[in-house]
Amino acid sequence: MPKRIITISREFGSGGRQIGQQIAAELGITCYDKALIALVAAESGFDMEFVEATGEYAPRGKWLGNIAFGSGLRRGVHLIENLSISDRVHLVQNKVISEIAARESCVIVGRAADYILRERDDCLHVFIHAPMAQRVMRARDEYHLDAANIEKEVERKNKLRANHYKHYTGQTWGLAANYHLCLDSGAFGLRGCQEIIVNLAKK
Amino acid sequence: MPKRIITISREFGSGGRQIGQQIAAELGITCYDKALIALVAAESGFDMEFVEATGEYAPRGKWLGNIAFGSGLRRGVHLIENLSISDRVHLVQNKVISEIAARESCVIVGRAADYILRERDDCLHVFIHAPMAQRVMRARDEYHLDAANIEKEVERKNKLRANHYKHYTGQTWGLAANYHLCLDSGAFGLRGCQEIIVNLAKK
Repeated sequence: MPKRIITISREFGSGGRQIGQQIAAELGITCYDKALIALVAAESGFDMEFVEATGEYAPRGKWLGNIAFGSGLRRGVHLIENLSISDRVHLVQNKVISEIAARESCVIVGRAADYILRERDDCLHVFIHAPMAQRVMRARDEYHLDAANIEKEVERKNKLRANHYKHYTGQTWGLAANYHLCLDSGAFGLRGCQEIIVNLAKK
Repeated sequence: MPKRIITISREFGSGGRQIGQQIAAELGITCYDKALIALVAAESGFDMEFVEATGEYAPRGKWLGNIAFGSGLRRGVHLIENLSISDRVHLVQNKVISEIAARESCVIVGRAADYILRERDDCLHVFIHAPMAQRVMRARDEYHLDAANIEKEVERKNKLRANHYKHYTGQTWGLAANYHLCLDSGAFGLRGCQEIIVNLAKK
């Protein structure tokens, strides 16, 4: 079946966000990146900056969501008061992503959307990565990261994403088997990646 | 630059071997799969069955190759007598793969060829995986594995490949960042994967 939802997971600096935006524009659907953060902020009551920082980077402590909700909603509701702020953001993020996917064709960037939507068969799950040199270049040119220790900072951001993913999914971030398609944007270019994804999504 | 060498790493039962053969046929180049094993057997003096089993599954003990060759060939030659049989097969395999790559356009299936040829810029490194149900189906229909505990056996074979890869490369097998392209053959079909790879190799 055609894949009407595309999730883009990406290394920091790989250009995955830009690829997601271009794909959405080409397919005439919404790219949930900043838009997703705005929805989670509105629903959770936290502000956007906090949601952006918390919703994809490693929280402290142990994720209790699966325990809280494993034995039924009543128990979950009872336990939700004990969840950390990170876990609350994560729960709202889960809910918002599931609702968007049920409602419309879209591109969703980051936020473990591949895992949250893993049971759906109308999703194309993509992971974008790139060699360090290109990630550093993009971090400097597009995110204006400081030139000193930039490589270390790029690695640190990836590590935080990996920890966050592990924490909430139990899976290893960037393992090929978790995605339908993984692309090296350094090898194919952003435009090349975009073409491959759009072609596959349409099939 | 066009990629004249394609390495295919693959989960057991993912159809990666068949994809490699089809790509090679389409591009009019040799697929080194059994042919590679024959060359390693001839060069090492071990028989094909042994090379096939040893060259991709986990050996016991610690890989000393990098130590042996890290401080120059003379020291390496001196130490090679102390290497295990697995390590000797691995060394010959390395040599044969490097020689093939230097000589001709080709497809190389498995055998950590992605790692061995990582310094070349004329390679397209591909990883093929598939959901368990499809790997089990292929294991039963094509490799005639026994139906009892077939899922466990498929997992065991993957685990052995992962251990072997870790042992000789220090890297995690199946991590997207180690390949230019990773594909779920269950999502795209063997023919679909073949088309994607051939298109990218030609660019």
